[in-house]
Amino acid sequence: MVKGVRNVEFLFEQIYQYVLRKIEQKVWNEHHKLPSIRQLAKEMNVHRLTVHKAYQLLKKNEVIYVKDKIGYYVQSNGTKQTENLENPIVSSYVRKNHLSEIHQVPVTYNFSQALIDPNLLPNHFLSDYVKKVFDLYPKVLSSYSTVQGDLELRESLTKYFINQYKKHIDATELLITSGSQQAIHIIAEAFVKAKDIILLERPSYSPAIDIFIEKGAKIISVDIHSNGYDLDQVEYLMKHYKPRLFYLNPTFHNPTGYTVPNSQRKQLVELAEKYRCLLVEDDVYHDIYFVGKPPPPIYTYDTVGTVIYVRSFCKYISPGLRIAAIICHSSLLQSLMIVKSLTDNGSPLLNQKIFLHYFSSKRMQQHLEKLRIAISIRKEIMEEKLSVTNWQWTSPNGGLNLWVRLPQHISIEKLLTKCFEHSISFVPGQICDPLKQQTSWIRLSYSYINEHQLRDGLKSFVEVVESLEE
Amino acid sequence: MVKGVRNVEFLFEQIYQYVLRKIEQKVWNEHHKLPSIRQLAKEMNVHRLTVHKAYQLLKKNEVIYVKDKIGYYVQSNGTKQTENLENPIVSSYVRKNHLSEIHQVPVTYNFSQALIDPNLLPNHFLSDYVKKVFDLYPKVLSSYSTVQGDLELRESLTKYFINQYKKHIDATELLITSGSQQAIHIIAEAFVKAKDIILLERPSYSPAIDIFIEKGAKIISVDIHSNGYDLDQVEYLMKHYKPRLFYLNPTFHNPTGYTVPNSQRKQLVELAEKYRCLLVEDDVYHDIYFVGKPPPPIYTYDTVGTVIYVRSFCKYISPGLRIAAIICHSSLLQSLMIVKSLTDNGSPLLNQKIFLHYFSSKRMQQHLEKLRIAISIRKEIMEEKLSVTNWQWTSPNGGLNLWVRLPQHISIEKLLTKCFEHSISFVPGQICDPLKQQTSWIRLSYSYINEHQLRDGLKSFVEVVESLEE
Repeated sequence: MVKGVRNVEFLFEQIYQYVLRKIEQKVWNEHHKLPSIRQLAKEMNVHRLTVHKAYQLLKKNEVIYVKDKIGYYVQSNGTKQTENLENPIVSSYVRKNHLSEIHQVPVTYNFSQALIDPNLLPNHFLSDYVKKVFDLYPKVLSSYSTVQGDLELRESLTKYFINQYKKHIDATELLITSGSQQAIHIIAEAFVKAKDIILLERPSYSPAIDIFIEKGAKIISVDIHSNGYDLDQVEYLMKHYKPRLFYLNPTFHNPTGYTVPNSQRKQLVELAEKYRCLLVEDDVYHDIYFVGKPPPPIYTYDTVGTVIYVRSFCKYISPGLRIAAIICHSSLLQSLMIVKSLTDNGSPLLNQKIFLHYFSSKRMQQHLEKLRIAISIRKEIMEEKLSVTNWQWTSPNGGLNLWVRLPQHISIEKLLTKCFEHSISFVPGQICDPLKQQTSWIRLSYSYINEHQLRDGLKSFVEVVESLEE
Repeated sequence: MVKGVRNVEFLFEQIYQYVLRKIEQKVWNEHHKLPSIRQLAKEMNVHRLTVHKAYQLLKKNEVIYVKDKIGYYVQSNGTKQTENLENPIVSSYVRKNHLSEIHQVPVTYNFSQALIDPNLLPNHFLSDYVKKVFDLYPKVLSSYSTVQGDLELRESLTKYFINQYKKHIDATELLITSGSQQAIHIIAEAFVKAKDIILLERPSYSPAIDIFIEKGAKIISVDIHSNGYDLDQVEYLMKHYKPRLFYLNPTFHNPTGYTVPNSQRKQLVELAEKYRCLLVEDDVYHDIYFVGKPPPPIYTYDTVGTVIYVRSFCKYISPGLRIAAIICHSSLLQSLMIVKSLTDNGSPLLNQKIFLHYFSSKRMQQHLEKLRIAISIRKEIMEEKLSVTNWQWTSPNGGLNLWVRLPQHISIEKLLTKCFEHSISFVPGQICDPLKQQTSWIRLSYSYINEHQLRDGLKSFVEVVESLEE
């Protein structure tokens, strides 16, 4: 089946997805007997252990069950049954936002929020700019912004972008959104409908997984490594599954911190063009680098309108303003604008104006330089405090997160419960995994609490993990 | 078929919907021959003219075609074919936001924006409150709001609501959204999926129609009259079609200005409970009354969680802040909160705080009293300037719009084109009609331009219409 790529982990996923599809397409109905492990292994030209592993996970995820110790059968609730809502008054069609649930628990040692400590943000400066905005536009609160976003802001971002990346864009190719979360949501609404196949990195940004699942998309995962993707795998998936889009976060990737190398970026655009797959590039940590500037966005290689670029600046200026931008070819932007107009009819003008005036100031650049140093110091503290353990991670060159592998026998669920008791939070890797495995991984953010709290919290965290090891 | 209700207009609609459903359910495929007019009239126990009228409209809307002068057949593109997107890279799943397209044309005499003239809004006061907010919460721009919305604001709105309507609600039953448009969008996402049947008033708020159509809902319309609904019709539709929800705007209804009388409000909740149909009550003009306070919201009669109440205050405080609230039973609110978290992760805190401090001030009440007078004067000017014509309308007791019937032979499409040439805009009634008829009606908003402009613009508008009459 797969040429060039014979990675076991990858094959296992394909088997898993293969079974899921058969059930979802109702080729195999409930209580249907699955092919034996031996049979399917032969048919798919893989090792029996690979099929065994896929079946085990399907069983664990309650998609199939075992009977008579040898046969595997489709469970009656093997696929999600949102259709059969008995009481429309209290039943809804939505599932979960997993990350948001974790954030609802108030803790002192917060390693779950991939946000910058409010004390590091330019609060004082910003209130000056607010004053300035009211002087310049006294009726700013009485006016709607256009759906596309304030023209002055779009022009300023256009200039910035051309200056940074030497790619010509026009203010008509920008759409201002209320944060990058809204941007992803709007893109999903415009371009993804139930049963569309999409590609997501594995692991990926958890709310993005939730958004695409909520749209009813069929997700196929693309492994991301410290050196990028396996482009043969990407090509194979694009060719065979004709995915509608590939949502990716190639720069200081959340949660892993990996960056897809420049050498792969242009190739990826070529593949996407060839197989008519939209690339949705989420670029939220671009300016939070510790060593040197990251490679230019994948979008800069776009020529025909294959890439939708989502850029958020707000994390390091003011999360409270909720400002992000989508940049893409105007044919795509038209559809996104209609969704934006139905969604909220445009982001608040006040917020756009405050952002504009601070973003285009010299103060912002000075602030950003200091901020990079402050965050990189926090990262170093985290790595130092974890160096006493045998846990594994790849030191990131930017972003706000450490992607850490704990010893395999630690139950992450138990750990999270215990951590909450100690006023500590983190993100279980499982919720960042489209396949809901990766049970030994966790995401620790080093940017939200101060150096002192970081040291105390990590000491305590290591102790909690060790207590579970005994 | 229908007991009690034998209104011809209503029967005609049911025939129209009946044919549409047969086609959508693929009971009648393309080029299928429809029953003859005589046959269907007999079958449905209606007059032949009623079936004739329905077939004529289906033909006009390109759902069916005539062959050999006698037979009606299903057109090959009779139902929307969003499935067959040839090029996924530029094709999207969204349709249109009709109203937003009209607003994109810049004009001097704007009768299309149902907004309040920015000069009537408390711009100066608001900047004081912005200062206050920064003094009170110096880090307001560095912080996210919770997904549900700022607790202080929710508590303040709760108090206001209890005080106004003597119905107990709790701050946990409120969700803050970025305007009422977002509220409707979130409700649709949580509770409506493709092929669900929903009820909409006829006419209705145009962006709401667009939102529900975009979700793929099947829309059945409920006529709204100056004295409310025909509750027999509502019960018939709830009983026979089991709609998932009924989106309604019962107070100073947009576009007609009608108010559903108090006597019908409790009955409507009882019907909705009986037939398990959610009521989504959009209450955007509640405080813009000219004669006396309107009846209490339908939501105040809710006991078991059948009504989702959408209240917007921002139109008369600051459209730029984009703040509205959803109030409903917590079981429903849970689902809405998940969608809100996926949509944008919470509305900006700054905007919520500014709104809170102004909304709870005495100044706001004083301002609102003056505003009501100013808007009612503008309404009177509009009615006076139109009194020279033979056009028909019902004088509204609140809200921002006049729903006007023009002479039947005027082409609204031609009129709109001609009006744009004269720098005049209005909303064609057709886009407020779920059935896309009502071709002689238009919506004129009297609140956006000043008295002088109103007089000039309306004089010019009457002349343009008259020029088309010749």
